[in-house]
Amino acid sequence: MRILTGVQPSGKLHLGNYFSAIRKILEYQHKEELFLFVANLHALTTFSSKKELEENTMSAALDLLALGVDPEKSIFWMQSDIPEVTELTWYLSQVITVSKLELAHSFKDKVAKGFSPGAGLFTYPILMAADILLFSADRVPVGKDQKQHLEFARDIAERFNAQFGDLLVIPEPDIDEHTATVPGVDGAKMSKSYKNTIDLFASEKEIKKSVMSIVSDSKGIEEPKDPDDSIIFQIHSLFLDETGKQTLRDRFRKGGVGYGDLKKSLLEAILDRFAPYRKKREELSADLGYVQSSLKTGRDKARSVAFGKIKEIRAAIGIYSSDF
Amino acid sequence: MRILTGVQPSGKLHLGNYFSAIRKILEYQHKEELFLFVANLHALTTFSSKKELEENTMSAALDLLALGVDPEKSIFWMQSDIPEVTELTWYLSQVITVSKLELAHSFKDKVAKGFSPGAGLFTYPILMAADILLFSADRVPVGKDQKQHLEFARDIAERFNAQFGDLLVIPEPDIDEHTATVPGVDGAKMSKSYKNTIDLFASEKEIKKSVMSIVSDSKGIEEPKDPDDSIIFQIHSLFLDETGKQTLRDRFRKGGVGYGDLKKSLLEAILDRFAPYRKKREELSADLGYVQSSLKTGRDKARSVAFGKIKEIRAAIGIYSSDF
Repeated sequence: MRILTGVQPSGKLHLGNYFSAIRKILEYQHKEELFLFVANLHALTTFSSKKELEENTMSAALDLLALGVDPEKSIFWMQSDIPEVTELTWYLSQVITVSKLELAHSFKDKVAKGFSPGAGLFTYPILMAADILLFSADRVPVGKDQKQHLEFARDIAERFNAQFGDLLVIPEPDIDEHTATVPGVDGAKMSKSYKNTIDLFASEKEIKKSVMSIVSDSKGIEEPKDPDDSIIFQIHSLFLDETGKQTLRDRFRKGGVGYGDLKKSLLEAILDRFAPYRKKREELSADLGYVQSSLKTGRDKARSVAFGKIKEIRAAIGIYSSDF
Repeated sequence: MRILTGVQPSGKLHLGNYFSAIRKILEYQHKEELFLFVANLHALTTFSSKKELEENTMSAALDLLALGVDPEKSIFWMQSDIPEVTELTWYLSQVITVSKLELAHSFKDKVAKGFSPGAGLFTYPILMAADILLFSADRVPVGKDQKQHLEFARDIAERFNAQFGDLLVIPEPDIDEHTATVPGVDGAKMSKSYKNTIDLFASEKEIKKSVMSIVSDSKGIEEPKDPDDSIIFQIHSLFLDETGKQTLRDRFRKGGVGYGDLKKSLLEAILDRFAPYRKKREELSADLGYVQSSLKTGRDKARSVAFGKIKEIRAAIGIYSSDF
């Protein structure tokens, strides 16, 4: 089965990203045909500066390779390396109406907040559909907030097929209901925009600072503590199996251990789990040659799939190609 | 000076197209640096069938080459051969708002007529801006109905430059106030959609039929006729210089010549003027090798310009490119 997913280069990866999305993507690599790209074209809808986009783009590629994406096993590419995706966006623009696009949450939210959204944000669901349909993805992992975008992609594909013949694979959503919402250090959902993250690839000092800042109640060392009411426990349990969770739960309930020590245990768990990835990322950052060659390998593989598909699509619509 | 213009592959070329637009384009070839393309991507906003699009696309290329477009002198290409244009469309989508696009006449007209316009029609002005800005056109010949689209392109370029640096040439409109509106055989503006055209490359029999169907009043052969009130005269005068027009005017006024004969004179003028082009077009149609090689020549030239520009634009925004 062909699984496709794009990762937005939105800055530093944190535990929330990892446990709610990235971990699962990495599992697919061993079980399915994984198509994975860094969505640097999409990132323009939340653009702040050239420097930040460049850094975040390279950072996303480094993160994924460090975490174990294997460019030989998967097809891993940079979105901007496949111009066919914007070409397909134009073709798909013909089969979706403006009034349908106006229903997109991402657009409605902006309007509701009083913004005058750009055409990029408005047509974003079409680019997303093109990403999926160009590569004939069978399944697309989607968070709850992206469910609608996948519905758009399905709708666009169905309309296209009805008009031009059965060319596009209708993608199925892959919604994992069990995916944990990872709390941030303040207890709200961990998110860059809430500034409550614990970052995977920050320095040990920074990670320690984040972990130590996790909000807890004021129970003293000796007092028993309620694990189910503790952010420390919730985050730590992401790293544990059922037995490990039970042991930790007991440690909370028994008393005699302060929050400071419980945080230290969590810090150890984080550093332990990510030590090999952190080391790998440092090596990769020191010499970008591997990242660049990986992206070229991926680009060539992705391009051959994209090129085959766009040729079929052009032929079905009646678009001229000089053969080259 | 670099002049850029796109010709929609909208079917059979008629006298209206020729005298209001094509003739001028051909003149530019000898005076300026002409960038000319067949706008087959734009044609999708009025798509009817694959077969029609294919035929019209090839037909537009044949028409222009037969009329004298020289692929060595000008850069003449098929829009779909330059994928950078849809890529640039995405970048430019970030600097124009939805509310601005809603002001486009082409969009408002559809809405006013009760249609639910497609996203393609809605974003059409951005693709048009990309066509112009990718090739750094200094001037763009525009009919009165396209003036607004050029204003959009200018506005987009100015916003882009303000955000990303002075990269895009702000195109100037080239509006020819003297361009005649060519009447159709019924006196309304000659237009395919009114079915009142005289086609340049139809058979002699069809052209004759069209000319003979020109509406006139019921004045008898001997009666004097008013040239300024005659569609025959208006069309015929497009082929004449001032002396020729005066002679024809006198012939109308003097009487003794019926409308049938006046139409025959017009038919002769049409066939005379277009005989070499009609012959050339027949030769080109018989063997499409020249058309195809011309489009390849143009594609390579256009692509090298487009590629240079898109690299600059990517660098300014912070878009990753594997160098290839």
